[in-house]
Amino acid sequence: MHTEVLAAPKRAAAPVTPTIGELEPIGVPSVHLSAGFWGDRQKLNAEAIIPHAVEWVDRLGWTANLAAARSGQPYTHRGREFADSEIYKLIEAMSWEVARGSTALEPVLDRFITLVEGAQDPDGYVQTLFGRPWQRPRYSDFKWGHELYCFGHLMQAAVAHHRATGSDRLLKVAIRLADHVCVMFGPDGLNQVCGHAEVELGLVELHRITGEQKYLDQAALFIERRGEGTLPLFEFGRAFWQDDMRVRDADVLRGHAVRALYLAAGAVDVAVESGDTELLDALELQWRNTVAKRTYITGGMGSHHMDEAFGEDFVLPPDRSYCETCAGVASIMFSWRLLLATGKVEYADLIERTLYNVVATSPAADGRSFFYANVLHQRVEHVPPPLNEDGVVIRGGASGRQPWFEVSCCPPNVARTLASIGCYIATHSASSLQIHQFASARITVDGWDVEMQTDYPADGRVTILVHSAPDGAGSLEFRVPSWAGTAVLSDRAGQRAVLPGYASAPVRDGDRLTIEFPLEVRVSYPDDRIDAVRDTVAFERGPEVYALESIDLPENGSIDDVRVYADSGRYDGTTVRVRVGQVGRERDRPWPFAAESVHIGAAAAEVPLVRYHEWAERGPSTMRVFLPALH
Amino acid sequence: MHTEVLAAPKRAAAPVTPTIGELEPIGVPSVHLSAGFWGDRQKLNAEAIIPHAVEWVDRLGWTANLAAARSGQPYTHRGREFADSEIYKLIEAMSWEVARGSTALEPVLDRFITLVEGAQDPDGYVQTLFGRPWQRPRYSDFKWGHELYCFGHLMQAAVAHHRATGSDRLLKVAIRLADHVCVMFGPDGLNQVCGHAEVELGLVELHRITGEQKYLDQAALFIERRGEGTLPLFEFGRAFWQDDMRVRDADVLRGHAVRALYLAAGAVDVAVESGDTELLDALELQWRNTVAKRTYITGGMGSHHMDEAFGEDFVLPPDRSYCETCAGVASIMFSWRLLLATGKVEYADLIERTLYNVVATSPAADGRSFFYANVLHQRVEHVPPPLNEDGVVIRGGASGRQPWFEVSCCPPNVARTLASIGCYIATHSASSLQIHQFASARITVDGWDVEMQTDYPADGRVTILVHSAPDGAGSLEFRVPSWAGTAVLSDRAGQRAVLPGYASAPVRDGDRLTIEFPLEVRVSYPDDRIDAVRDTVAFERGPEVYALESIDLPENGSIDDVRVYADSGRYDGTTVRVRVGQVGRERDRPWPFAAESVHIGAAAAEVPLVRYHEWAERGPSTMRVFLPALH
Repeated sequence: MHTEVLAAPKRAAAPVTPTIGELEPIGVPSVHLSAGFWGDRQKLNAEAIIPHAVEWVDRLGWTANLAAARSGQPYTHRGREFADSEIYKLIEAMSWEVARGSTALEPVLDRFITLVEGAQDPDGYVQTLFGRPWQRPRYSDFKWGHELYCFGHLMQAAVAHHRATGSDRLLKVAIRLADHVCVMFGPDGLNQVCGHAEVELGLVELHRITGEQKYLDQAALFIERRGEGTLPLFEFGRAFWQDDMRVRDADVLRGHAVRALYLAAGAVDVAVESGDTELLDALELQWRNTVAKRTYITGGMGSHHMDEAFGEDFVLPPDRSYCETCAGVASIMFSWRLLLATGKVEYADLIERTLYNVVATSPAADGRSFFYANVLHQRVEHVPPPLNEDGVVIRGGASGRQPWFEVSCCPPNVARTLASIGCYIATHSASSLQIHQFASARITVDGWDVEMQTDYPADGRVTILVHSAPDGAGSLEFRVPSWAGTAVLSDRAGQRAVLPGYASAPVRDGDRLTIEFPLEVRVSYPDDRIDAVRDTVAFERGPEVYALESIDLPENGSIDDVRVYADSGRYDGTTVRVRVGQVGRERDRPWPFAAESVHIGAAAAEVPLVRYHEWAERGPSTMRVFLPALH
Repeated sequence: MHTEVLAAPKRAAAPVTPTIGELEPIGVPSVHLSAGFWGDRQKLNAEAIIPHAVEWVDRLGWTANLAAARSGQPYTHRGREFADSEIYKLIEAMSWEVARGSTALEPVLDRFITLVEGAQDPDGYVQTLFGRPWQRPRYSDFKWGHELYCFGHLMQAAVAHHRATGSDRLLKVAIRLADHVCVMFGPDGLNQVCGHAEVELGLVELHRITGEQKYLDQAALFIERRGEGTLPLFEFGRAFWQDDMRVRDADVLRGHAVRALYLAAGAVDVAVESGDTELLDALELQWRNTVAKRTYITGGMGSHHMDEAFGEDFVLPPDRSYCETCAGVASIMFSWRLLLATGKVEYADLIERTLYNVVATSPAADGRSFFYANVLHQRVEHVPPPLNEDGVVIRGGASGRQPWFEVSCCPPNVARTLASIGCYIATHSASSLQIHQFASARITVDGWDVEMQTDYPADGRVTILVHSAPDGAGSLEFRVPSWAGTAVLSDRAGQRAVLPGYASAPVRDGDRLTIEFPLEVRVSYPDDRIDAVRDTVAFERGPEVYALESIDLPENGSIDDVRVYADSGRYDGTTVRVRVGQVGRERDRPWPFAAESVHIGAAAAEVPLVRYHEWAERGPSTMRVFLPALH
């Protein structure tokens, strides 16, 4: 039985459109970014990142998998179990580009959609690695098979494509697939979950676009099943795939970071659509505890290289920080859904921190190489990446950004995030417009026509021109970040200080607001329970975290030998500068545990820091975010 | 062609008997430990650890594998690829027990030998997991198959058994096996190495016992082949199995710690027997750099839980320290071979540190549970271990000692080390006897009859009675540990101070020496490049490292909140005590990176520390070796 696209209520052309919540998302076509921090990156995404990714998935034969699947002839599958999902994420990214009027990517988008249409089995299943006579059977490997994971990405891509273009080509594929999933995994079906959460997100969004209740029910069933131990025992423990306890019983995120965060995001979707306040409360608690004890200053999540997982509370070593780019994207997805549901400012604060310090960090300035893992302490200039037999870097852990990865989830995640980044900028509700992120952009929705102009985060001034408000007047709210102390708002009523949280101003057609955010250099002291960075400080300015790169030290100094004067940070118009002293130490001691501590040399110098998201752009280097401080 | 046991020169009944070197080992039967630190543990080993291990390998069916292999009937192999090697290590342990006159273990030893004899194929191959018609083929998996690894342990067991009992039952098995290895992997054979080094050690010892040159040549060939990239590419990189560069080109140990250390030990054996000074120099350099930058204060090696591997220089996080027990044993094997070759005191110093803080730590006081990983900072009281389908803990990472492991290499390694620990106490050369480790023991070799009496390390006094010296007079040398500052020697010539290194005294029949080692509490400051323990101190006394266990804090304090007064350590006759203050902190901060650092509360208390090797014996607890220091 196939589900038709029901006449569902009109929703924004956005990735996430909850039926109920505090805030209503604004569609991708309704936010046009102009030149500026995010506008430039969105343009880079369209012109470089997406084409680069398309080249790679073609070159490595992952698109050919889909063509081969259609042919019915035996073929050798290329790439990993989740290769299909990278195609889907690129479809999603390109769809958002097309939604904003781009035509350049339409031919590729069409080619990709055609490939996916052709690869679907009559019963709705679509995965190029399993199920054919010469292949492993369908659903024979829930640990690593990533089948449901791929399905979820297909569903997200289909939603994007339909909302962007009005076409239901891919939506039909997704509906047939979702029907198949409901049959196979419903209450009378296989009592299983996927080793990698994701399908929950896709099912709920399909529910939102079709109104089909069973998709929501299936997502809820997957959420409830998690923690029942249906996945096999595994060396890294059940927490790796969050199968150690029920989602509603957990108080913090555990295990593989991307899995944990996709699961949490999908659980928010389920909770919101189901009115499940117990579940939503649990997820908010998990967010709070994870941010308080298991998150890096960059917003990055995931301390362990071993299993790309969260560590215990306060285990946040900067040199072994994994902070997978995908985990940053997933964190934003989780926080965004909580923001839409509750309107609480801390969610938008974390989204800002993660956008500027994980998402912006991953791609190189030319959009043709990426960080997979985003460390906060690079000890060694050159760490060669492990390569597979095709000479492709396998995954994160090397120094420097890489052009692609065998496990290539990160670049397409960057691509779809940048393509839809306008959605994170604002929401609306009743006669209010909420500005969550600052960027040069024009926002037109529901009677609002608002233009934001800013050089944020280099400059703290944000100007908002209210070309029109609904029925001539409304309330404009904007976030004052938690780091901002106080900001200054100038509007028709005059000038006043505004504190962290959401500030609001009544506005009328033609009004002009100016906000000044304080951009003094801030010194951040880590909680002393984070042993790995005891007695160090980090420097921030606005939303941007800064770092010291060895390239900027005088006379080939080593970043290991630097001690910073904690109060010495100043902005020179371009970057933050600090004063540092050099440690005098006995070289080549035979044993590193001694009767006395080291002495600090007398010489001090002022050195520039670099914006963390711009590090490793000037050649091989070592780097530290947290700098040992002088008392 | 089978090699006979040639009339090789008589060598000590010890695990390692180099043909050439500075120092000559003393056989296991020649050193009798009496009650005291090591005597007690050797007794525990014979009465509890070995029988416990035998129970487990029987219960889990690993001995049954050998019986089934003999039968010729299809069987399901139990345990991991290296299950056979645990039998061999227990044979080795029991052989050393029998060498010292024990009869209690003879029946089991005989049973095990019979099983191994029965499991050998006609061409000499013996491995219960591969090669039979229903099994994977021989030599089809050099990455994880552990075939050559098992062979090496068989060879070490055979050497031990022959030297202990004079029987050549197992030696014949080993010789047939070694001949097979030389055919299969010789210059005209498979150009391969084992993913896990070990066979090199076994082959050289077989060479030493038989005089057969081709065994040495084969070991040397395996050493030279390492680094040629014959092992497949692997996600953790070639360094994981030390296949990234030639042994003689490396300057530090890298990759999986146990593999790296077994390889290094085997390479020392090859270098010594071959007169390869370039190789020996390279190994000494690797030892120096590893100890200076990649070794924990306990002597533990291996920072990464991910791959049980070395980290980069100074990456030594105490909470994620792996310090696998096997790596401690392997480190001792490496250092011991370097000591025999060169006589340099630093090797014996590290052996002492590792014996008291890794080997002594692993087994529980009752000998029936073990640490696999030996962390220096236990953050959470209870970390449930990952279990396999049989309910057996898979490997390290849980809190607390465990009765057994699916990857059970550690307990048998503890067993064979304790059974032969007498060998590490002394060596001889010409008319000198060298005392490397202090224990109550009687040493009789080559005209020497020396009795050492001591309560070391609780007490610093060591008394040595020279019942007889060769031809009535000789030189007695003893190590003054590097931590000792100065010790005081009293002999027939009077009293004098002796400095770290080897001190010597001329002795005659009937002489009595007394050495007093200073056992003041020492404060150790870690090198500041070890970020994870910046601004902390550790406390040591003699060779023992101390730790703070939560059980000893007043009023349910948390070890996270404690700051120690660095100069406050004192010994109260039982343990070290220190004064600590409590951190006052704002509980439940939403974000752990703040504008100010924490304040220290005023209350101070004196608390006892625990010997690190005795921690986790009083119930669930948290623990730190490195304590944040108050300025």
